[in-house]
Amino acid sequence: MTDVVIRSAVADDLPAIVAMLADDPLGATRESPDDMTPYRTAYERLRTDPDQFLMVAERGGAVVGTLQLTFVPGLSRRGSTRSIIEGVRVAGSERGRGLGQHFIEWAIEESRRQGCSLVQLTSDATRTDAHRFYERLGFTASHVGFKLQLTTSD
Amino acid sequence: MTDVVIRSAVADDLPAIVAMLADDPLGATRESPDDMTPYRTAYERLRTDPDQFLMVAERGGAVVGTLQLTFVPGLSRRGSTRSIIEGVRVAGSERGRGLGQHFIEWAIEESRRQGCSLVQLTSDATRTDAHRFYERLGFTASHVGFKLQLTTSD
Repeated sequence: MTDVVIRSAVADDLPAIVAMLADDPLGATRESPDDMTPYRTAYERLRTDPDQFLMVAERGGAVVGTLQLTFVPGLSRRGSTRSIIEGVRVAGSERGRGLGQHFIEWAIEESRRQGCSLVQLTSDATRTDAHRFYERLGFTASHVGFKLQLTTSD
Repeated sequence: MTDVVIRSAVADDLPAIVAMLADDPLGATRESPDDMTPYRTAYERLRTDPDQFLMVAERGGAVVGTLQLTFVPGLSRRGSTRSIIEGVRVAGSERGRGLGQHFIEWAIEESRRQGCSLVQLTSDATRTDAHRFYERLGFTASHVGFKLQLTTSD
């Protein structure tokens, strides 16, 4: 993975990131790559929030992966800060080549470096391939993830 | 629930909050109420983070519940902001009296008011009573929650 650069996303990366979010069985129904306005608004909020790290993986000048790493301070577990990984996507052309593992390992190391005691994520119950992937990387499927939709737009 | 006040936690609430975190089958092994230092450090970070809301429920001047509500902006789902509920505890004397439901409903309404499209939380797979509780409140157990411990201190 010496030819892969992991870096913070910039505004010019947004079309590539949104295309990856939409190129997914679940994302296809949730995203609207033809209208970038809500993504640009959200990006501004992410960019200015010191706990949010919207990252991309780049290979040969092309954006081929994205994830969001969030740091959440808390009182539980003796005042631990935990990190949350969300929105993990790897471009179709890159799947099966180890990029996902490299990217998640980067997120784990960055969380350790920032003093987190725990990394967590939730994965849709239908994504069984993803579950095996996270278990191989050392994660434990110890929790049930509950969601409550507040809007009908997605 | 007209006699219950839900408000932001202040530093003087920390001993009562930590006592509730520790008074729990899982929390008992994770918390150290005899040493408040790490909790005070974490509280300062929570207090100054505009995305973090450490809340308490108070009845008759006593702190009888706590939860942490975190707002997480993101690109997924057309630039949605989601909220995450963590660290939910109700004092033993109050359990079964509807306080937990009242408190979670407050968190849902606050999330809606702040423009979130989704409320999410994870619950340890062993907390089956909690799972029924969240499903009664409209949550769907649609995800698997993965955790990776980075330290051995808890």
